[in-house]
Parts: sequence; structure tokens; C-alpha cells
Amino acid sequence: MVDDNFVFIGKKPLMSYVLAALRQINAGNKTVIIKARGKAISRAVDVAEIVRNQFIPSATVDDIIIKTELLRSEDGRESRVSSIEIFMTRGEGPMAPIPPPRSPMGPPLAPAPEHEPEPEKEWEDS
Amino acid sequence: MVDDNFVFIGKKPLMSYVLAALRQINAGNKTVIIKARGKAISRAVDVAEIVRNQFIPSATVDDIIIKTELLRSEDGRESRVSSIEIFMTRGEGPMAPIPPPRSPMGPPLAPAPEHEPEPEKEWEDS
Repeated sequence: MVDDNFVFIGKKPLMSYVLAALRQINAGNKTVIIKARGKAISRAVDVAEIVRNQFIPSATVDDIIIKTELLRSEDGRESRVSSIEIFMTRGEGPMAPIPPPRSPMGPPLAPAPEHEPEPEKEWEDS
Repeated sequence: MVDDNFVFIGKKPLMSYVLAALRQINAGNKTVIIKARGKAISRAVDVAEIVRNQFIPSATVDDIIIKTELLRSEDGRESRVSSIEIFMTRGEGPMAPIPPPRSPMGPPLAPAPEHEPEPEKEWEDS
């Protein structure tokens, strides 16, 4: 498995990760692994859902792996953080056109995704 | 599938969801479904990881489903939000003792989980 397959979710606008994922999934091996740690995990799910709902209807989520990773800070302190890896494959269906890459000086990309980042309605655990 | 099986992740302290999940997974059918929407998705993963790393080593994550849900606000506006459902089963291994339920007036529960909620180190997408 090559590292190029991964899209690591950070703090950029959501759509830049969607684009990165679309480029991967449309490349040679038609797969992408969307990976995130900590709070970015929710955004990884958003990216996967936007890819298959808004761009590549034939794309499938083949596997989702959750883990705990051990991080070591500069002062040697260890902490644990959850991570997620979402494995997606492009199916054989039609492919939505991918917006061109954003020019470094260009206007911001695309409309905001329809996914709302944080409704976070309070749910009760029965 | 009964609703009782679900633990819905909201804004309470993480350990209260861990406890709810432990009670479910130790009950009759030995399964629990940890469900969350939006930003709470990261916490759902934390809960699953804490259950299997700190309490029930034999517990397994059998399936993880991600979806997009359509929410309608009071003014009729629709928005989409990602959701996750993590299906866990208690294996046959030894079971860690479950801390007693917190009394409504009692002191706060347990030590803080070792999972750090938000390291969220910036990752670059290649």
C-alpha cells in the first residue's frame, strides 16, 4: 500500500480534502484511504460522504478501521488519540467531473459543502 | 434490532457514554451500537476505543457504518449531517469490572479518560 493513497484530514477547508480524495480515487488504482485523528475524525466522515453523495455515486466505502494511536509530545509526554481510516473504492458507474485545482492565487474553491459541520444536537443515551 | 442497544453520543462527559456502552455490551445480547452525528462522531470513536482498550479487551468492532442524515430545522430548512454507527460485540474473554453508576448527587465519575480529546495535529494531504 502506497502512502500516496492516503488523504490526511487536517484543518484546511473541507473541500480541499474532498478534491484530494477525488483525485486519488480517480487515479490508477481507484482507491483512497481517508485518514484522521482526534477531532478531525468527524471531518473524515464528512469527506467520504461528500465524495460518494455529491461526486461519485458508484463509490463505495469498503472498510473503516478505528484505532488508538500513541503520540509523544516534545517533552516526552505520551497521549492516546483515536484515529480512523476510511477505505473507499470508485465503482464502475459514471464519474462526476472534478473541479480544476485551485490556483495558489485564485479565488476560494467551490461552494461550501452542504454538510453542516456542527449541528451536534444533544442526544440522550436512553 | 432494539433501540435499547444504541448509545447515542451527545455532550455529556465521555465516561458516561463509556459506562452506558459497557452496560449494554454486558447485558443479554452482548452487543452495543454506538451512534453519533456531526462533531460527536469523533467522540463515538473515542468511546469504542476506550471500551475495548481499557475495559473489555475481548470486545470487537464488527462493523462501522457511515451515513448522511437529512435534518429539518424548525423553520423547515434542511441540512445534511454525517453520522456513524459502531457495532461492537463482547468477546468471550475476561471482563473488567464496571464502575458503579454515578449517584445523581455524587462526585464526578472516574478519572478522566486517557484519550486526549483534541490533539488534532495538522496533517497535510500530501
